[in-house]
Amino acid sequence: MDSVLVVGSVAYDSVETPEKKVENSLGGSAIYFSAAASLFAPVKVVGVVGDDFNWNDIAFLKERDVDFKGMQQAPGKTFRWGGRYEKDMNYRKTLYTDLNVFETFDPQIPEAYKKTPFLFLANIQPQLQQCVLAQMARPRFTMLDTMNFWIEGLYDALIETIKMVDGIVINEEEALELVHESNLIRAMKKITALGPRVIIVKKGEHGAMLSVNNSYFFAPAYPVENVVDPTGAGDSFAGGFMGYLTKQGEVTESNLRKAVIYGSAVASFCVEGFSVSRLQKLSLQELNARVAEFKRMVEF
Amino acid sequence: MDSVLVVGSVAYDSVETPEKKVENSLGGSAIYFSAAASLFAPVKVVGVVGDDFNWNDIAFLKERDVDFKGMQQAPGKTFRWGGRYEKDMNYRKTLYTDLNVFETFDPQIPEAYKKTPFLFLANIQPQLQQCVLAQMARPRFTMLDTMNFWIEGLYDALIETIKMVDGIVINEEEALELVHESNLIRAMKKITALGPRVIIVKKGEHGAMLSVNNSYFFAPAYPVENVVDPTGAGDSFAGGFMGYLTKQGEVTESNLRKAVIYGSAVASFCVEGFSVSRLQKLSLQELNARVAEFKRMVEF
Repeated sequence: MDSVLVVGSVAYDSVETPEKKVENSLGGSAIYFSAAASLFAPVKVVGVVGDDFNWNDIAFLKERDVDFKGMQQAPGKTFRWGGRYEKDMNYRKTLYTDLNVFETFDPQIPEAYKKTPFLFLANIQPQLQQCVLAQMARPRFTMLDTMNFWIEGLYDALIETIKMVDGIVINEEEALELVHESNLIRAMKKITALGPRVIIVKKGEHGAMLSVNNSYFFAPAYPVENVVDPTGAGDSFAGGFMGYLTKQGEVTESNLRKAVIYGSAVASFCVEGFSVSRLQKLSLQELNARVAEFKRMVEF
Repeated sequence: MDSVLVVGSVAYDSVETPEKKVENSLGGSAIYFSAAASLFAPVKVVGVVGDDFNWNDIAFLKERDVDFKGMQQAPGKTFRWGGRYEKDMNYRKTLYTDLNVFETFDPQIPEAYKKTPFLFLANIQPQLQQCVLAQMARPRFTMLDTMNFWIEGLYDALIETIKMVDGIVINEEEALELVHESNLIRAMKKITALGPRVIIVKKGEHGAMLSVNNSYFFAPAYPVENVVDPTGAGDSFAGGFMGYLTKQGEVTESNLRKAVIYGSAVASFCVEGFSVSRLQKLSLQELNARVAEFKRMVEF
């Protein structure tokens, strides 16, 4: 079976919600991605942790065929992030970001990983994303995530990187900011013109839009009544999306659409628990049942 | 064929957008509703205009089987509204609201209208909506629209009115405000508990959600690239929805879902021109083609 490589962060998060406070729980884009993608296909991870990292924390991922041989361990502390969500869970405040060993992260792709057909570049510095692309041997499908921090701080490098990938996943506000647009459809056309034929715009509680060569697909968000912890929703969406696509092997529009739904379904489970707790016990059977609900939600 | 009765405003609007300024063009909830609903079924209108009203302005609606025998004409000026849209067409500023003859509007339902099976109470004072309901002879399906102004100013009367209708159509923020909620799914459950089994939440560019006895349907917004004038989007949505439902005659969940899509499709045309200009020349054939695009947009 094909596998998927993710390059991203591994972190210990401290999260406050109106209901609860959870400290130093496993987080980071590469972790959420792996927890989601490994439901479908083998995953390889390139990231960095500090000498305080407890390898038992990722034992459940190893059991699911997630390969951590590309994980570097460096002297110092693991990346730490703290955030607080308000009553309206759509808004969060970052309390602190201690990059620690992640500050000097230099992604080295092990020889055995270079032919991985599916590649996901999580939200890291655009030059590092380029550096990963340069090490790979013609992957079948490459996708990157990014954020306002890079749009505002490293615009030219980011645009150059976007030109090199097949797909991009991005928040709605960031998609508009990226190409200086106020209309999302025009924004997606402009991003397509840069190069990527696949664009996924994440709209949070409003769902997600997929554009494949300017043909549009709309996925609703699952109506989650009790959001426990929104952290990792985007990365688990990406993991579900890439994992499903990897399992199918072929990047057709039909597979891309189903992948968006699987990504949305995984993300809807992710936010039902703190950290990766809900993803850890999630079964494919539960996931398929939710995908059937997505189908029913848009049928007319 | 069944028909639908709308009680609402008739106005002359002045609208500014970054591109253009149009003064004293036909507007008001009852007008946008009629222009949309009359594509499907006969419409009856109860509203009020001043002695300055130019009846030629509604000639195109009369040709489409819209019955204005219930329209009152009072001494004074017709309701006038002025607004300005920013570059991001999602935001508008009301420049003035001159209620004029609409201030003392007292909806009288003609005898011949009282058995109309479908009734839409556009966004007017809740007591007036109740007063209309009291005059009707057991309509098959009643739906009301409302706004933050009534939620904030006439809360108890509005809640009483909501208890009396089968359905409600409301903006997302207003749905949350109405039942003091931050989560939309919980808000829709609370509104259902008040009485209406049909709830439509309008989310603007994010589409619309339908809840039928707490079963959810999600409709995307059509990806309109060039929004010319958003005025009347909500009322033409309601008109398309009620018109389609009236044409089908039976209020089943399947018909309600299709009605939401037809409403969304009509609204997407409405915003492509100033005032009712695009609705005036809209054909059922164009509409059906767009509905097919909606289907394609959510297929997976």
